[in-house]
Amino acid sequence: MTAIDFATFVDELATVSGETILPFFRTALTVDDKNASGRFDPVTAADRAAEQAMRTLIRRNFPDHGIIGEEFGDDRGDAEYVWVLDPIDGTKSFIAGMPVWGTLIALMRLGEPVFGMVHQPFMRERFTGDGVAAYYRGPAGKRDLRVRPCEKLSDTVLFTTSPLLMNETDRAIFRRVEDGARLSRYGGDCYAYCMLAAGHVDLVIETELKPHDIVPLIPIIRGAGGLVTTWEGGAPEGGGRIIAAADKRVHEAAMKLLNQ
Amino acid sequence: MTAIDFATFVDELATVSGETILPFFRTALTVDDKNASGRFDPVTAADRAAEQAMRTLIRRNFPDHGIIGEEFGDDRGDAEYVWVLDPIDGTKSFIAGMPVWGTLIALMRLGEPVFGMVHQPFMRERFTGDGVAAYYRGPAGKRDLRVRPCEKLSDTVLFTTSPLLMNETDRAIFRRVEDGARLSRYGGDCYAYCMLAAGHVDLVIETELKPHDIVPLIPIIRGAGGLVTTWEGGAPEGGGRIIAAADKRVHEAAMKLLNQ
Repeated sequence: MTAIDFATFVDELATVSGETILPFFRTALTVDDKNASGRFDPVTAADRAAEQAMRTLIRRNFPDHGIIGEEFGDDRGDAEYVWVLDPIDGTKSFIAGMPVWGTLIALMRLGEPVFGMVHQPFMRERFTGDGVAAYYRGPAGKRDLRVRPCEKLSDTVLFTTSPLLMNETDRAIFRRVEDGARLSRYGGDCYAYCMLAAGHVDLVIETELKPHDIVPLIPIIRGAGGLVTTWEGGAPEGGGRIIAAADKRVHEAAMKLLNQ
Repeated sequence: MTAIDFATFVDELATVSGETILPFFRTALTVDDKNASGRFDPVTAADRAAEQAMRTLIRRNFPDHGIIGEEFGDDRGDAEYVWVLDPIDGTKSFIAGMPVWGTLIALMRLGEPVFGMVHQPFMRERFTGDGVAAYYRGPAGKRDLRVRPCEKLSDTVLFTTSPLLMNETDRAIFRRVEDGARLSRYGGDCYAYCMLAAGHVDLVIETELKPHDIVPLIPIIRGAGGLVTTWEGGAPEGGGRIIAAADKRVHEAAMKLLNQ
């Protein structure tokens, strides 16, 4: 496939998934609880329908590619090219009517994320990464995404989706960084990483991420000049405890506190 | 002034403030710290410019009206009609690039809020209340806002902007309600009350609100069929510790826990 074909294809994926999801946004929804432990973990009809629509489109265009999706699991996960899909990242925001959720789409080649997109169809925003990172909204032109410099932890705007999602040990560790930040905010989901790539947020620290929660964000963060690792400094593709930073200096400062 | 004149005028207020604010959104901003205690409390140039623009428009059209604004204080606060303005509610979301902030505009008559609006110019959304409550976005038509029924606390979606904004005593009291809710989310500011009015959120509980933080929301919440009081059950116009509920039954259940 050529570069132009690919850009057209991923835009079509985003458009189709957005058109599938939006009619469900801010309407009465059936909320399932897929987590047997009883923790509230909503999955909506929109989630399933959008992933199904994207899977159909990928299979039709790239029958050799694998697909890993939040809702319907793995299909040829060992192929050279594998798509990673999370139709609604931020389902809890979604069911509360808040607009800070997104559709995550990634393409991996031989295990490396080579393309990532966050699509926010309600606001018609697309954040992409493929070596560089870009933003576009509706008919307006594309613009580059670039992290901002940040020298010290005490200058940082820090995000986490919710400390309630962390186990007690991780929450106590997280508090060390939070106490040193200039401003700590909750409630971002994927959108917080996009704001990091756009130069408005300096740190995002989370735990218990699944691969599909983070893989599509990696090319966006890195394409914008940011860093993303596990709390141990390892590769982030497997999810788990993740730290994203706009600047190497605050990554280092936060890592010291996370591993002290 | 006739009803039509008034609707046109408040739409103009919203349009002018939105046009003033948006060029500052997601750009590098000078952030001041107006709170001498050292607590981070950003005020932006956008905040000031928008309030100034709204004040000018009000004075030109209604020279007898009073104005209470977040940035420039009280002007004839004892007039029959008094406008209450908060150009950017959710300044911390604003500086982080998150879209869940809003411009709050209220009109009080003899101390009673008779009109309220939340304008979110980035998403082009307007939420209004004046006996009934309505929503409109861009060129799309107006639709009514209506809270949803909710029988039990254990069925509620609860919002608070951040427990970090509460003092320790209030935070402990808040936790009692949070522990009983189905889902607790952080990071809403004014937008959480709008989602309550729209039927997606059941409870919003906050502390340390200023009058301009809550007065413009009261007609929206009540117009949609919701309740809003202080934690003691009193009138909410003065701010402080506030609870908004979609349903009388969950208001009662939460009030028991807040006052136990």
